[in-house]
Amino acid sequence: MSRNVKFLVLSALAFLSASALAVTHPSMPEVLAAATPADWRGLDPDNTLYVELPGGRVVIELAPRFAPLHVANIKTLVRARYFDALSIIREQDNYVAQWGDPDNRHPIPAGVGKVAPEFDSPTRADVPFTRLPDGDVYAPEVGFSDGFPAARSPSLHRTWLAHCYGMVGVGRDLDVQSGSGAELYVVIGHAPRHLDRNVALVGRVVKGVELLSALPRGSAEMGFYTKTEVPTPIKSIRLAADVPESERSNLEVIRTDSATFTALIESRRNRPEDFFKVPAGHIDLCNVPIAVREQRPAAAHSS
Amino acid sequence: MSRNVKFLVLSALAFLSASALAVTHPSMPEVLAAATPADWRGLDPDNTLYVELPGGRVVIELAPRFAPLHVANIKTLVRARYFDALSIIREQDNYVAQWGDPDNRHPIPAGVGKVAPEFDSPTRADVPFTRLPDGDVYAPEVGFSDGFPAARSPSLHRTWLAHCYGMVGVGRDLDVQSGSGAELYVVIGHAPRHLDRNVALVGRVVKGVELLSALPRGSAEMGFYTKTEVPTPIKSIRLAADVPESERSNLEVIRTDSATFTALIESRRNRPEDFFKVPAGHIDLCNVPIAVREQRPAAAHSS
Repeated sequence: MSRNVKFLVLSALAFLSASALAVTHPSMPEVLAAATPADWRGLDPDNTLYVELPGGRVVIELAPRFAPLHVANIKTLVRARYFDALSIIREQDNYVAQWGDPDNRHPIPAGVGKVAPEFDSPTRADVPFTRLPDGDVYAPEVGFSDGFPAARSPSLHRTWLAHCYGMVGVGRDLDVQSGSGAELYVVIGHAPRHLDRNVALVGRVVKGVELLSALPRGSAEMGFYTKTEVPTPIKSIRLAADVPESERSNLEVIRTDSATFTALIESRRNRPEDFFKVPAGHIDLCNVPIAVREQRPAAAHSS
Repeated sequence: MSRNVKFLVLSALAFLSASALAVTHPSMPEVLAAATPADWRGLDPDNTLYVELPGGRVVIELAPRFAPLHVANIKTLVRARYFDALSIIREQDNYVAQWGDPDNRHPIPAGVGKVAPEFDSPTRADVPFTRLPDGDVYAPEVGFSDGFPAARSPSLHRTWLAHCYGMVGVGRDLDVQSGSGAELYVVIGHAPRHLDRNVALVGRVVKGVELLSALPRGSAEMGFYTKTEVPTPIKSIRLAADVPESERSNLEVIRTDSATFTALIESRRNRPEDFFKVPAGHIDLCNVPIAVREQRPAAAHSS
């Protein structure tokens, strides 16, 4: 069968099966198509970063609830244009893309200093935690909180963000207080969950992660670039609030405490598409997609 | 106890335990340095593929024990030079790189046809299975078999390979018998374990996966390239046995049924390095590195 015919058949069958099962067990596209405007939330421009690379824009949602001190540092650094004209300095396959200022080319702005680790925080009753019942290898409980993949320990009464693909963390030295936010990394491989509770996670890439994950790997140890490799420059990093509205990325993220999100998880746990002969029955925290879409004009002022 | 004091105490304990237990709880480099030649095995040239890309060579170890029919097909395709001058046709972020012949440019060689699915196989008492005691979200038991990440069900008496980073699978249509081996993919993102038992896995990239994972992402649906995007050409795919010895990649892989490999797992489960303040205590199947090294001259004829 030719490729084109193959694709036609695939599309037709996908459509038919999706139609037949629409009510009881919808696919992810069907779940999202049935979502209401209230299932989506806009991004807060005061907690959204635009990393402008030669290939385009990477959009990061910051997590001030989980790492307020580091997020405050990062905002100060961004507003001082600290990151502008620096580079992606490290690209380690199946691990992280990282940027910073190893050659101390830019001064650290006033007010950015050592802060408490913020590797985890007290579990708060007032912050929704949509628990994933599938279990986890690393933590007693996992789920989603405030739009981020998270884990928590009932006995320790602590909650922390989880190192899934696209999560953004603060590079540090051996001293737990050495990570100011001036060096950041993004997970671009299989979730390095052993870093959980050892690093401050400060956000998640909601769009454009492929602009970081497809960069050439550095050939020095730990994926750092050698002197002869040309690192990718960072044109600028801006807070969305500091960018004219007409130039902002108007994205919406699915609310992780909505019934729609729970249905989305089920659509991925047991995929209804005909391709799947043996449903997985379970899903790993970091395999749950936190859906993002372009904001619709009608919803522009409703969030 | 304040958070800072806690961390100091933890650090002190981590430091003390790392120092005191250096012999019993070594780091991964220490584990590998202490390995004996018997802990390593050479690759079988009859079951090793070289995918030659413009950026270099990708080395794939085939898994004939788990997918003998598909591996036989792939060898026939390779020996007919079926893949030569084809392209990487799909590059989907956090998912797969894939190649094949969607335009039917090359004839399928005689002898390559539909085969049984080979998505799993009967659990064999004579094949070692080094069980990982850490648990798993997807399968009742996971571990390593014949050098590959694997899972099994005691009740079903079935074993299957697991979709970890770098694993190589056979693309197929809806029909479970439609995957001949003429279309192959490599996992380049967080383990898509929902594909386990739905696709025939036929091997693992043991070197050069970054030559596939760092390619530009395709912008059509599912990461396929559009007509205007220039896909990466495949110069050739060869069986190592068909390549002159002087041009072979002489690699060795750690034996996954060795005590050294068990020690390696522990070195990653509870990392002794000072950077880690809270040891993970557990490890996910797909986070265990299956170590590969250049074959040492002295060992060249000992495996």
